[in-house]
Amino acid sequence: MSVLVVGTVAFDDIETPFGRAERVIGGAGTYIAWSSTFIHPSANIVSIIGGDFPKEELAMMNARGIDTTGIEIVEDKKSFFWAGKYHDNMNKRDTITTELNVLADFDPVLPEAYQDDEVLMLGNLTPEIQIKVMDQMKKRPKVIILDTMNFWMDVAMDTLKEAISRVDILTINDEEARQLSGEYSLVNAAEAIHKMGPKYLIIKKGEHGALLFGEDKIFVAPALPIAQVKDPTGAGDCFAGGLSGYLAESGELSFEAVKTGIIYGSTMASYCVEEFSLGKLKQLDEMMIKERLQTFKDITSFSI
Amino acid sequence: MSVLVVGTVAFDDIETPFGRAERVIGGAGTYIAWSSTFIHPSANIVSIIGGDFPKEELAMMNARGIDTTGIEIVEDKKSFFWAGKYHDNMNKRDTITTELNVLADFDPVLPEAYQDDEVLMLGNLTPEIQIKVMDQMKKRPKVIILDTMNFWMDVAMDTLKEAISRVDILTINDEEARQLSGEYSLVNAAEAIHKMGPKYLIIKKGEHGALLFGEDKIFVAPALPIAQVKDPTGAGDCFAGGLSGYLAESGELSFEAVKTGIIYGSTMASYCVEEFSLGKLKQLDEMMIKERLQTFKDITSFSI
Repeated sequence: MSVLVVGTVAFDDIETPFGRAERVIGGAGTYIAWSSTFIHPSANIVSIIGGDFPKEELAMMNARGIDTTGIEIVEDKKSFFWAGKYHDNMNKRDTITTELNVLADFDPVLPEAYQDDEVLMLGNLTPEIQIKVMDQMKKRPKVIILDTMNFWMDVAMDTLKEAISRVDILTINDEEARQLSGEYSLVNAAEAIHKMGPKYLIIKKGEHGALLFGEDKIFVAPALPIAQVKDPTGAGDCFAGGLSGYLAESGELSFEAVKTGIIYGSTMASYCVEEFSLGKLKQLDEMMIKERLQTFKDITSFSI
Repeated sequence: MSVLVVGTVAFDDIETPFGRAERVIGGAGTYIAWSSTFIHPSANIVSIIGGDFPKEELAMMNARGIDTTGIEIVEDKKSFFWAGKYHDNMNKRDTITTELNVLADFDPVLPEAYQDDEVLMLGNLTPEIQIKVMDQMKKRPKVIILDTMNFWMDVAMDTLKEAISRVDILTINDEEARQLSGEYSLVNAAEAIHKMGPKYLIIKKGEHGALLFGEDKIFVAPALPIAQVKDPTGAGDCFAGGLSGYLAESGELSFEAVKTGIIYGSTMASYCVEEFSLGKLKQLDEMMIKERLQTFKDITSFSI
């Protein structure tokens, strides 16, 4: 079984208080797919790139077990490009430039071989595209996870709600949960969002960890305090990748499995931020992941 | 052994999105002392009040095991008064009024019977007063905890640093840790603050929980998501009270003990915010505390 990832594969310019990175590899789909294959060995990705995207990056993805035949290449156009600047408080960033380029024409067609994947991870994209992908699955995947952001709530709330109604797990941040539900309290927001469809709501809080609401239970997941966060770009996508990979690996969608998936996701995110772009992911090995999972256990255990 | 609490005993006017409370009982010392006696049965308190403070409130404190002979009563003056307004985001508040009243003359004299207490909890006050209290202890208490805020960093940094150099545990929020240390990363801030004296640094993050740094280890404590936070006033003080009470009860100052103390503190804080003023604390019993401690265990446990 493969994790099916839908998301951007792109270039980023990034500026943080710790440095700059120009025209580095980015995109939600890239981070999700890379991250998930550390937990589950095989992923398929649906995306679109221009002729400018380095072929050796695709080869590196293939070497990790990511099938990239679902990435459409438009040779005479440019890849999606995003430039952003992070402030002292790494939780906030400004978008400097967004060049849609090939993304403007993205109309995903799922390869036959992807259509019965059992874990579908819909990265942040227009809700129309997220729906088009769900519509192309032969049978309803065991697990559908959807990531989105406030922008789609502002410009396409109805379509977004339709997409959300069809998924098992929704991942958004606290302000987005409030905007989507119209409830200030996250407990009440979760209740309202469950009624929209998703069995599980994961609220991503960056350096403050994450909250899981589902089955009338709550799980409070820690973030690992990091001495030097170099670049937060992709952290949320690595989180989603680790979660997807774990759910594919475990084959379950229980509250317990989602909790563990969140810890896998947090582990991947905690590594991601230590270097620019895919820098840290490209150095990771299984032992490092095991060690950090144990660290998450250590920093949260207590006796009463 | 009693917990010795130093802090304000006062009146508050509070406005939150959920209502108003006028001239209700407040003050860091009040919340700390109340909270600690749910965990450890006896507390002494040093404070100052005016003739306007209700005698029945002192009687209620006595009934809980709080010795109030250390509260100086200035009959012809008024008690300290604070009025504040919370915004939609309950993490932020504006001070509307501060009337020091009796607090302007506060020069604490410790009753003889308090001078060998083994847990000293210094609530947020001028660092001069915090130092004066430490100077009056017959022998160095086993545990000294100090709470402070950015205001004292702005106006009395040197005296504050002197006070901090003499304590075991410092409790501040993340922005205060950054201001005190000059380090943005909390991991680096903790390292700098350890060098100033405290063995343990607790960073209070309100609805995002707390972090403990000490002995080269980190503990990430959760906050309990609450459906309706009515009034956050006193939450940090109830946290400090639960922590102090637990450390007095356990008689230890190990990393493990401080971790458990933080969970006791978080438990008390989670109840505190459910009603205005001391409303919820006055309804609490041992079983409710046990139940919530178990809830904290449940919302943080996971398998890897």
